[in-house]
Amino acid sequence: MAKKVKKAEKKTAGKAKKYVYNFGGGKADGKSDMKNLLGGKGANLAEMSNIGIPVPAGFTITTEMCTVYYKMNRNYPKELNAQIKTSMTHIEKVMGAKFGDEDNPLLVSVRSGARISMPGMMDTVLNLGLNDKTVLGLAAQSGNDRFAWDAYRRFVQMYGDVVLDLKPRTKTDIDPFEEIMDEVKKEAGVKSDVELEVDDLKELVKRFKAAIKERKGIDFPEDPWKQLWGAIEAVFGSWNADRAIKYRNINKIPHDWGTAVNVQSMVYGNMGDDSGTGVAFTRNPATGERKFYGEYLINAQGEDVVAGIRTPQPINTSTKSSKEQKTLEEIMPKPYKTLEAIYKKLEKHYTDMQDIEFTIQKGKLWMLQTRTGKRTAAAAIKIACDMVNEKLIDEKTAVLRIGADQLDQLLHPMFDPKAEKEVIAKGLPASPGAATGQAVFHADDAESLAAEGKKVILVRIETSPEDIGGMHAAQGILTAKGGMTSHAAVVARGMGKCCVAGCGAIDISYKDKQFKVGKTAVKEGDWISLDGSSGEVMKGLVPTIKPELSGNFGTVMKWADKYRTLGVRTNADTPKDSQVARDFGAEGIGLCRTEHMFFEGDRIKAVREMILADNLEGRRKALAKLLPMQKGDFIGIFKAMKGLPVTIRLLDPPLHEFVPHEEAQQQEMADEMGVSLEKIKQKINSLHEFNPMLGHRGCRLGIIYPEITEMQARAIMEAACELKKQGVDVKPEIMVPLVGEVKELQNQTDIIRRVAEETIKKAKTKVKYMVGTMIEIPRAALTADKIAEVAEFFSFGTNDLTQMTMGLSRDDSGKFLPAYVDMGILKADPFQVLDQTGVGQLVEIATKKGRQTRKDLKVGICGEHGGEPSSVEFCHRVGLNYVSCSPYRVPIARLAAAQAVLKSKK
Amino acid sequence: MAKKVKKAEKKTAGKAKKYVYNFGGGKADGKSDMKNLLGGKGANLAEMSNIGIPVPAGFTITTEMCTVYYKMNRNYPKELNAQIKTSMTHIEKVMGAKFGDEDNPLLVSVRSGARISMPGMMDTVLNLGLNDKTVLGLAAQSGNDRFAWDAYRRFVQMYGDVVLDLKPRTKTDIDPFEEIMDEVKKEAGVKSDVELEVDDLKELVKRFKAAIKERKGIDFPEDPWKQLWGAIEAVFGSWNADRAIKYRNINKIPHDWGTAVNVQSMVYGNMGDDSGTGVAFTRNPATGERKFYGEYLINAQGEDVVAGIRTPQPINTSTKSSKEQKTLEEIMPKPYKTLEAIYKKLEKHYTDMQDIEFTIQKGKLWMLQTRTGKRTAAAAIKIACDMVNEKLIDEKTAVLRIGADQLDQLLHPMFDPKAEKEVIAKGLPASPGAATGQAVFHADDAESLAAEGKKVILVRIETSPEDIGGMHAAQGILTAKGGMTSHAAVVARGMGKCCVAGCGAIDISYKDKQFKVGKTAVKEGDWISLDGSSGEVMKGLVPTIKPELSGNFGTVMKWADKYRTLGVRTNADTPKDSQVARDFGAEGIGLCRTEHMFFEGDRIKAVREMILADNLEGRRKALAKLLPMQKGDFIGIFKAMKGLPVTIRLLDPPLHEFVPHEEAQQQEMADEMGVSLEKIKQKINSLHEFNPMLGHRGCRLGIIYPEITEMQARAIMEAACELKKQGVDVKPEIMVPLVGEVKELQNQTDIIRRVAEETIKKAKTKVKYMVGTMIEIPRAALTADKIAEVAEFFSFGTNDLTQMTMGLSRDDSGKFLPAYVDMGILKADPFQVLDQTGVGQLVEIATKKGRQTRKDLKVGICGEHGGEPSSVEFCHRVGLNYVSCSPYRVPIARLAAAQAVLKSKK
Repeated sequence: MAKKVKKAEKKTAGKAKKYVYNFGGGKADGKSDMKNLLGGKGANLAEMSNIGIPVPAGFTITTEMCTVYYKMNRNYPKELNAQIKTSMTHIEKVMGAKFGDEDNPLLVSVRSGARISMPGMMDTVLNLGLNDKTVLGLAAQSGNDRFAWDAYRRFVQMYGDVVLDLKPRTKTDIDPFEEIMDEVKKEAGVKSDVELEVDDLKELVKRFKAAIKERKGIDFPEDPWKQLWGAIEAVFGSWNADRAIKYRNINKIPHDWGTAVNVQSMVYGNMGDDSGTGVAFTRNPATGERKFYGEYLINAQGEDVVAGIRTPQPINTSTKSSKEQKTLEEIMPKPYKTLEAIYKKLEKHYTDMQDIEFTIQKGKLWMLQTRTGKRTAAAAIKIACDMVNEKLIDEKTAVLRIGADQLDQLLHPMFDPKAEKEVIAKGLPASPGAATGQAVFHADDAESLAAEGKKVILVRIETSPEDIGGMHAAQGILTAKGGMTSHAAVVARGMGKCCVAGCGAIDISYKDKQFKVGKTAVKEGDWISLDGSSGEVMKGLVPTIKPELSGNFGTVMKWADKYRTLGVRTNADTPKDSQVARDFGAEGIGLCRTEHMFFEGDRIKAVREMILADNLEGRRKALAKLLPMQKGDFIGIFKAMKGLPVTIRLLDPPLHEFVPHEEAQQQEMADEMGVSLEKIKQKINSLHEFNPMLGHRGCRLGIIYPEITEMQARAIMEAACELKKQGVDVKPEIMVPLVGEVKELQNQTDIIRRVAEETIKKAKTKVKYMVGTMIEIPRAALTADKIAEVAEFFSFGTNDLTQMTMGLSRDDSGKFLPAYVDMGILKADPFQVLDQTGVGQLVEIATKKGRQTRKDLKVGICGEHGGEPSSVEFCHRVGLNYVSCSPYRVPIARLAAAQAVLKSKK
Repeated sequence: MAKKVKKAEKKTAGKAKKYVYNFGGGKADGKSDMKNLLGGKGANLAEMSNIGIPVPAGFTITTEMCTVYYKMNRNYPKELNAQIKTSMTHIEKVMGAKFGDEDNPLLVSVRSGARISMPGMMDTVLNLGLNDKTVLGLAAQSGNDRFAWDAYRRFVQMYGDVVLDLKPRTKTDIDPFEEIMDEVKKEAGVKSDVELEVDDLKELVKRFKAAIKERKGIDFPEDPWKQLWGAIEAVFGSWNADRAIKYRNINKIPHDWGTAVNVQSMVYGNMGDDSGTGVAFTRNPATGERKFYGEYLINAQGEDVVAGIRTPQPINTSTKSSKEQKTLEEIMPKPYKTLEAIYKKLEKHYTDMQDIEFTIQKGKLWMLQTRTGKRTAAAAIKIACDMVNEKLIDEKTAVLRIGADQLDQLLHPMFDPKAEKEVIAKGLPASPGAATGQAVFHADDAESLAAEGKKVILVRIETSPEDIGGMHAAQGILTAKGGMTSHAAVVARGMGKCCVAGCGAIDISYKDKQFKVGKTAVKEGDWISLDGSSGEVMKGLVPTIKPELSGNFGTVMKWADKYRTLGVRTNADTPKDSQVARDFGAEGIGLCRTEHMFFEGDRIKAVREMILADNLEGRRKALAKLLPMQKGDFIGIFKAMKGLPVTIRLLDPPLHEFVPHEEAQQQEMADEMGVSLEKIKQKINSLHEFNPMLGHRGCRLGIIYPEITEMQARAIMEAACELKKQGVDVKPEIMVPLVGEVKELQNQTDIIRRVAEETIKKAKTKVKYMVGTMIEIPRAALTADKIAEVAEFFSFGTNDLTQMTMGLSRDDSGKFLPAYVDMGILKADPFQVLDQTGVGQLVEIATKKGRQTRKDLKVGICGEHGGEPSSVEFCHRVGLNYVSCSPYRVPIARLAAAQAVLKSKK
């Protein structure tokens, strides 16, 4: 930023830089593609002027000025003053009024306008230019004393609040103007503002000014120019108000963009019943239906619509919901006709659905704003498809019009947007979707109640493999501990089930079968609702709706597939998940985690037997029990993915994840295994690790216990051979996890190939298979040229790669990561959005080095980032072959991959 | 390796490659600088031949042949046979005898010879060429029937053992030849071998052959050529015997070097009293004294000296330790004179102390081997200095002659090499040195017993801050749990105190005040001894000696300083350590860990108070108590390092390291703090982390709790200002730990600079200070260009950088890392020897990127690698400014740094 500004200043030194852009009167200095400089509002006001749409004249002070203002320690370059003066003259000329003139005063609004709309975040001043003298001119000119004095008292109040900073900042603060208003209304014996007489309004102005004097020790500025500079400063200042900074952090808007300031002549919707103001969408923003849709208020200023003080009326029949409602079309047919012509012109001009604001002053329609309208995912899809049919846009543009991340809305149940919610706590958004049900605290209870047809939410401090059945039976899972990679989170995502994890605020008592949040207690059987996308925990039953996938959805996906070059696979561990993903368009499995298969039913027993074994023989015996089960899993998955590649990762987690950590369960395990509790405890103790993330896991297990690798390779290859003989096309890709050094991979590859060749020979068939590795340790990325000598494919495990590259434990980062994002130290949670600067650098290095050694190396990504649009775009850019993500994110990845291609061609 | 061999094979395909090199008869095909190809022994035999020293003629089969042999699946290229035949003819010509001739048989020895000596690891066959016919020729020729038959029976036995693999592999196996020997001795009614008559020897040969037939089903090969090929195969085979592989792993010798085979004509030291054999050093290998030093046996074969069956005699008076001993000089003055001339010639020729083997056959002296003699650190230093004085070598060569790692011997107490040791367990060599004392199990007991003047060893499962006093009082520390970075290890290294950590084999009972290892119990008061350099735990009192530093040591260090360009600093946290390091030549402190100051006495109370505080005010109050204590620490350290830079790292460990984890101590803490145990537990629980290594630590603490950074910055700068005013020159360098993103550093730097400027202003003085960062997270290395925009210096924390780059938890890697090194997956423990390929790559990247941004960026390393010679060499090579290591390793680093310069110029 600093550099840019310096450059700007230098330029300025040479010749006066243009900081102010005019619009109105059928032409403008700017146009719509100058959003970065003029802000969204300013650019569109200019554009509307250019295409002959009636816009009150005005000028825009650039966003660049905002940056310079802060760089100059809240001062302005000299030339600004002259430029503003010139532009004001331009407005005066177009509007036929004069700023500060006692007879024919020009009044202006002063509004912010950033590149991207930040609704409600920044300040606005209306009716600027009024003072004790010009108010009289306005009264005379409008022939309406009350209107003029009402405008004046509004201005003084707004100026006091915004520019002079009297707006209360906390709920307990008192707004001095509200107090005065209440007094005056009481004195006048009226209940509402509109009943106040002219004299009451004059009294208000007087007392408002006195309040300013009292609180701020200054007189209310009568000089319109002084007023203007104050307002400009307030708008620039509001860019760095706390709430604006927070909003930008949350919405990932760079802090150095700055805001523009729009100074525009006022038009009034409150000049009587032939006046009004409204907002509208050129199509329905909820459904996408091609119908003009909006609301208006008669005899009102624009802010009244937004403020919601009066209930607005529908502008036309398609917006109307009851017979009693009067539409703008009915009441003011002429301006409505003009509005219709304008919205059609705008939509055609912008070739997108517009969100517009208008004011009718004494029968004349003025446009105050147009911008691309926000819409739901469903609407986005419908509008995109319709506009292609209307030949307004082409397919490529249509693909770019849909927010990939938004698709999530369509794929999971969601809460009815109209429903009321009482949020009692917030945890980590561990697995998306919405769920509602009765709280239960034990997996068994969840299963039995679900069997009775009840909807339940399983609430646990943490979940463990024993809880799988209950998790499956529940609508959603809520845990007090554990992060985004905790057992609960990972299993829930695999199941496509809603989960809120690590909700530290809830205090669970298993004994009392309840949890407490502050003073609120939730007992077994009480209804709660979970939002797995926001992490919110709500009391009571919040109704959910399940969006349906339309034919348009399929059309958009087809277009996306036409343009994307990046493959999209899925992370799936079961035949069911595989099928779901395939239905969503997955082109293979990019990550099948074999350890999840170890948790179910009898298997965990065999796994524990293996762990407990003191020697090779004992381990082999236990593994022999697992072999047929694993083989069965693979048969199911291979069948579901018939003809598509399936990447299977060998056992990854440290062995202590398979043993119980509570004494009662340890005793159970001891009884089952027929050994002493002491022995169990001793073993579990010996497995303890200080930093399990960096511990004895991944290929390190297979190297120390080659018999595990052997068993898994055999299960995979026996399954593959069996199906191959049945005529099913299978493409196994065996993936070795956590490799940091090529010799580790060589060791494991030797075992896998030996077992595979043995198995194929024995089965007397032919199966093509590949052996490759995860790249998830920085050292693997740095030595990828060596690793590619052995690996036939790479798959970036960006979850672990992020943890190690950034030195961040995902499960522990909750203590500081949210603050980091708030403070702007990190732009986003790197576990959600790939850190392209650091982790991405390693992805690029590894891809390049790997392909130096093996030109046709297949490279994919199987971390959670594989379903996050900006990360998918990155993967496309650095030349990966595919991304792999959870089944429900497959459509998102497909769309994002297409958008990546189209954006790069732009 | 594979590539190399292919190349070798290709060459071979063109023209016959030379695999066999002759020597003897005053000339040779090879020379001393061909060690890689001919092995050490072969190259030196060739060299001796070339300079006219009498060497029995022979030939060397190259190490390359060994590699080809394994590549060809234990087969030989065709041309080898012809080359060997030709070379055998060469020997026959020089020695005037014929291989396999019945009248004048040539006998040969077949020995291994790798690049680097691997004593006792590989196989040797002597007297080869004997059979039922040639033995008669030998008898006739030597005029000594007994000698000939003794040679024959030895040969059969050796051949059976080595080539036919009858040597017992385990202790319980029985050597068939030993059994037969015992029988025959019994039958002959004699007790020792030398008493056996010719007929007995003949009987032995017969029975030995029968045993071979019985065990192996084959006849003993009478054909000398068959014998020769068998022996060659045995030598090559022994290269990949388990013990040889293990030896190479331990000594970091690459497995693809291969061994050469030396076939040399036999000479006999056992042909009567005018014959003998011996080994000698050209100077004293223990002290370095310039005196010829060696032992011999009269009428014996070479192996007898090594085997230690008979006690050898001194070769001269300077070797003699008693009057009774007869020296070679006295008994055979003529050969001794020749030997003297030869050793002088050799030392002059090689310009280094030589370790030689010789045989005198009937008065004629033959040299069998010369090689650079192994020596103690003390000897290495004395010899280097003496040789410079003698003008034999220059200073640079002298500096290169001393093993930097060996210096450790001189700097810590060590066990008397002559003492007997009963090793009962082995742990991690956590802090070097030797310690002996009575076992105690509680820190309090250690303190009180030490106060009584007793020497104690503190034995704990783990240590914690409460144990500091006891650790200080103890001679050494032994823990059952925890790794090289455990509390015990880190604190002990800081104290320069011997520590063996993570000794899992010992089972400690605090209740019974004892530990058990298998069946051995060690009770309180029992003597034990610890070797902190090997990790050995010994029963009883093993006497230690404290080596003295000689003037020569100073001379060598002076030379080292003259040539090195890399700075050497120290890691020190106390004035005492700082002083020790300064005395050892440290040029500043590269890492002063402030958290160690937090553990002592009252401080830990204040730290815990801070942790327990629920709000900023509470934390500030507690920190205010710590401020004067920290300031005091810094004053002490600054004073000790007067004029030298002191790099102080801000608080690094996660807060849970400061709270007790056992309930009794938690109760104590609760009582002290006046809060409930419940509250303490809750707090400790909330601090728990799954992967503390990647958790809330380093600058992440200072960002969330800026008041900690403020306090520390203030303590540092107040100390600096105070001393500056007293005229003490201080150079504080404030180091922010665990930075991964430049904005983190910016955040902390802002705080530090603000506090520093305030403090300096208040003190009305001037202090120059720097603010920099540790580079210990891969992302920091990858974004070093950005980080250098803020950091004034970098210091690589290679401990953490290794953990994250390799995804290896140092404390947990014990489960697989030793196996990795054994299996050759890793060349060395990357926590001891810097992983140059992976971690080193990041060090290079970061240094380069950092200096792109800031040309004069000061870059150092403060991980434990800073004191490891090969890592120091790496740091020099990639252009770091300094290394920093523990005080006792400073001289090692100085020497290694000088050697790095000298090696790079070679």
